[in-house]
Amino acid sequence: MKLSARNQLNGKITNVDLGAVMANVKIEIAEPGVITAVITKESAESLGLKEGDDVTAIIKSTEVIIGK
Amino acid sequence: MKLSARNQLNGKITNVDLGAVMANVKIEIAEPGVITAVITKESAESLGLKEGDDVTAIIKSTEVIIGK
Amino acid sequence: MKLSARNQLNGKITNVDLGAVMANVKIEIAEPGVITAVITKESAESLGLKEGDDVTAIIKSTEVIIGK
Amino acid sequence: MKLSARNQLNGKITNVDLGAVMANVKIEIAEPGVITAVITKESAESLGLKEGDDVTAIIKSTEVIIGK
Amino acid sequence: MKLSARNQLNGKITNVDLGAVMANVKIEIAEPGVITAVITKESAESLGLKEGDDVTAIIKSTEVIIGK
Amino acid sequence: MKLSARNQLNGKITNVDLGAVMANVKIEIAEPGVITAVITKESAESLGLKEGDDVTAIIKSTEVIIGK
Repeated sequence: MKLSARNQLNGKITNVDLGAVMANVKIEIAEPGVITAVITKESAESLGLKEGDDVTAIIKSTEVIIGK
Repeated sequence: MKLSARNQLNGKITNVDLGAVMANVKIEIAEPGVITAVITKESAESLGLKEGDDVTAIIKSTEVIIGK
Repeated sequence: MKLSARNQLNGKITNVDLGAVMANVKIEIAEPGVITAVITKESAESLGLKEGDDVTAIIKSTEVIIGK
Repeated sequence: MKLSARNQLNGKITNVDLGAVMANVKIEIAEPGVITAVITKESAESLGLKEGDDVTAIIKSTEVIIGK
Repeated sequence: MKLSARNQLNGKITNVDLGAVMANVKIEIAEPGVITAVITKESAESLGLKEGDDVTAIIKSTEVIIGK
Repeated sequence: MKLSARNQLNGKITNVDLGAVMANVKIEIAEPGVITAVITKESAESLGLKEGDDVTAIIKSTEVIIGK
């Protein structure tokens, strides 16, 4: 499946922190460093996310704010 | 001003495409390549965005989807 | 690739309306009717979206508001 | 009140899972199955959401990603 | 219909600017009130947020739904 | 740093509620001001939005970024 989301950054998970409903996942991408994703705990478990996983951080372009 | 948004990627604008209401801005970040941001034309003009500008792409962590 | 986004509705595109920067895409899903997606024109063209295409509407659960 | 949000799917709540700050709510809609909404626990309590409630899942069209 | 969205600010439209696909709408807000923000605990701690802090609530215009 | 986000409301924090992963922050807004909403042209026409209309700007709390 190809996605309309313009931003798809490949990286490796470095940490998964599960709360009751949400999970905070750290993804190390090549250069600018680390992407933080907050997803449901349910998703984190359903995808079996764990440190070392190769994943893609997907971000729709309307969600990006520009600072200058 | 410090922002709560966890993801702040520094880069350089490589293209600004203005529509009637929205603008599509390409930002080259160091490694994974290019970030696409869609913002209002009004914002693009108010910040005076143009090719070569050093900017920051700001993304709230709740907006990131993970693909695996 | 499996996605963390909890909501993935299969449907068929019934209309694509291209603006200068954005595109409005109508997706007929089985029952509740039609989903409207606004994506970049760039994405619509890159995916070659057209009437009759089988697609998936993907929606992160944090983006859903509940009305009662 | 009419809403600008293009996507308003009627359904019935099948589960409410409360965390400390967030709540995960499952809404069964007619056909494609189940919609997951993550909202604040505060909202879930303020609306008194519970299994069997008839609700509407409201999604702004800019939040929909298309997969093909 | 009551909405789960915590922030509902009443106001009056002062301008509507139509593009091909999107529209930019200006709303003059009648009364200030309280904004609810849900951010990561990590951000709240990193910014040291506490009662009495002067802060700015930042909202991208694509995230606003209009009710009428 | 100037931000492309059109809506930046100054206020004072009145409460911070920390969960395991997320935090709910209440901000009392100092002055009303103007909200910018970008919606589909289709919605603007469907609701018949025009200058002088009394409307409600609806914003889910997960969409708010805090600057301090």
